[in-house]
Amino acid sequence: MARILSLTLNPALDLTVRLTRLEPGVVNRSETMLTHAAGKGMNVAQVLADLGHQVTVSGFLGQDNPQAFEDLIALRGFIDAFVRVPGETRSNIKIAEQDGRVTDVNAPGPLVSAQAQQALLDELERIAPGHDAVVVAGSLPRGVSSQWLLTLLLQLKDLGLKVALDTSGDALRAGLAAGPWLIKPNTAELAEALDCPTDTVEQQALAAERLHRQGVEHVVISHGAEGVNWFSPGTALHATPPQVSVASTVGAGDSLLAGMLHGLLESDQPEKTLGRATAIAAMAVTQIGFGISDDAQLARLESGVVVRTLTEQ
Amino acid sequence: MARILSLTLNPALDLTVRLTRLEPGVVNRSETMLTHAAGKGMNVAQVLADLGHQVTVSGFLGQDNPQAFEDLIALRGFIDAFVRVPGETRSNIKIAEQDGRVTDVNAPGPLVSAQAQQALLDELERIAPGHDAVVVAGSLPRGVSSQWLLTLLLQLKDLGLKVALDTSGDALRAGLAAGPWLIKPNTAELAEALDCPTDTVEQQALAAERLHRQGVEHVVISHGAEGVNWFSPGTALHATPPQVSVASTVGAGDSLLAGMLHGLLESDQPEKTLGRATAIAAMAVTQIGFGISDDAQLARLESGVVVRTLTEQ
Repeated sequence: MARILSLTLNPALDLTVRLTRLEPGVVNRSETMLTHAAGKGMNVAQVLADLGHQVTVSGFLGQDNPQAFEDLIALRGFIDAFVRVPGETRSNIKIAEQDGRVTDVNAPGPLVSAQAQQALLDELERIAPGHDAVVVAGSLPRGVSSQWLLTLLLQLKDLGLKVALDTSGDALRAGLAAGPWLIKPNTAELAEALDCPTDTVEQQALAAERLHRQGVEHVVISHGAEGVNWFSPGTALHATPPQVSVASTVGAGDSLLAGMLHGLLESDQPEKTLGRATAIAAMAVTQIGFGISDDAQLARLESGVVVRTLTEQ
Repeated sequence: MARILSLTLNPALDLTVRLTRLEPGVVNRSETMLTHAAGKGMNVAQVLADLGHQVTVSGFLGQDNPQAFEDLIALRGFIDAFVRVPGETRSNIKIAEQDGRVTDVNAPGPLVSAQAQQALLDELERIAPGHDAVVVAGSLPRGVSSQWLLTLLLQLKDLGLKVALDTSGDALRAGLAAGPWLIKPNTAELAEALDCPTDTVEQQALAAERLHRQGVEHVVISHGAEGVNWFSPGTALHATPPQVSVASTVGAGDSLLAGMLHGLLESDQPEKTLGRATAIAAMAVTQIGFGISDDAQLARLESGVVVRTLTEQ
């Protein structure tokens, strides 16, 4: 059991609406509407809790609608270290029609002031001691620069935490300069951040070497159903998940990240670590939500994962 | 200043999203997204508060997302007598596009159990004394029959309250049997509830006479921009609002109802009562929201209202 800090800088309320057919311009009646607290860091936190870890959640939360987050935090026994900011946490509306078509309407989040950014740095300085690792996951809210993200990551490293970073675009590019302990981009995100092709295993291995020299120990590259490549000094592994029927890919990447953190912090064998993380991600895909609801099913999925060293290819 | 109870049996969270154009099947980015506590009874309560009355709000509120309601209740100094029920208060999503097209996605509310219905009757029995009047406004939630509404209205009358009812369809039809003190249907709602035509003034006068015999003292029939007809024993008035530019008709009917209650409870002259109520409704139309934000503007609108007796026609 590790103590892990999970940061969601730009959380979202997911509002999922189901209806037969969306007709623009008229009054549509939905069959169901469900709100839940979301955001990559919150998702990772839940899977980590399923794996038995003690999790502190933090980031920026709109003070006008924190209830769904506070309820989830209480339900999961997280420690709440979110800094409240004026306004509402953004809502992402997902309108799911009977034929499978999904329309997303994503709102801008609150503008996070320099004062709130400093408040988070101060809060983390106070609470970081005693944690083993920190996850920083998701996009940056309005008002927060990628340069500030770099400051945050450097502070977290200085405080002695293993830093896992899962973001993309400018934020990933800037964050890499801090030399985080672990990153988990997909191929496109990695290519964009490094400005070089990462399609083949050889290109990925070169990119990983470059990242290792910058201080990034673990480069976990996700390829969806094709599996995962994991590069760390002396280790290059690929995992192929078992075939599963896809209910929803929501939370699959976050599940992979939580699984990797779990194995690494428990000092499991690399093959075991990657195999189980891949199985946890596959399990997320079989659900509308994600999380480890059934240990026996996880064991079955894990036994279906094929892990091999990348040099075998 | 009167003490007024305002019941919203089926409140809603209005979630208003603004974007350039809604494209089904893809990720849309909205410019703004605003949540606010809504429902006819809550709207009436706010206008009554603007008019200086002390308001107690009640009805059924989903216990999983009461915050927007609790914040508004605290902000406006209402007394909170809502019965909490399991689940979420329904959300009504309004997606407003740049060209003025609006797509509504309305969710079903929580199912209100017989136990919760009894709890509300008990609560009202306890808190009703000391109130001068009660407004029962809006639709019925899932699980609540129009027969139960009749029971509720009869109990409120027994408790000595003047009952103003603003609903439609089966609920209005059943509610009329209680002989409420005041109703405020539009022409179509009245025709449906009485099963007779109400297009002409003569037809409306006949309908009103029939209602008076059932114990309904005030029949207020709204016609939108054409104005309002008000029938009570010995009085038949029409008010024509001044021409205004329409920003949104949200809350206009609720404003009319609040204005009528105000004049009647303050024992103002009938012409004054109807004229001001019509002006308050016109003021709502000029706003995206509603309410009395500017007394001088209200006075100007009121001076533009033409009130005449219906026999002059």
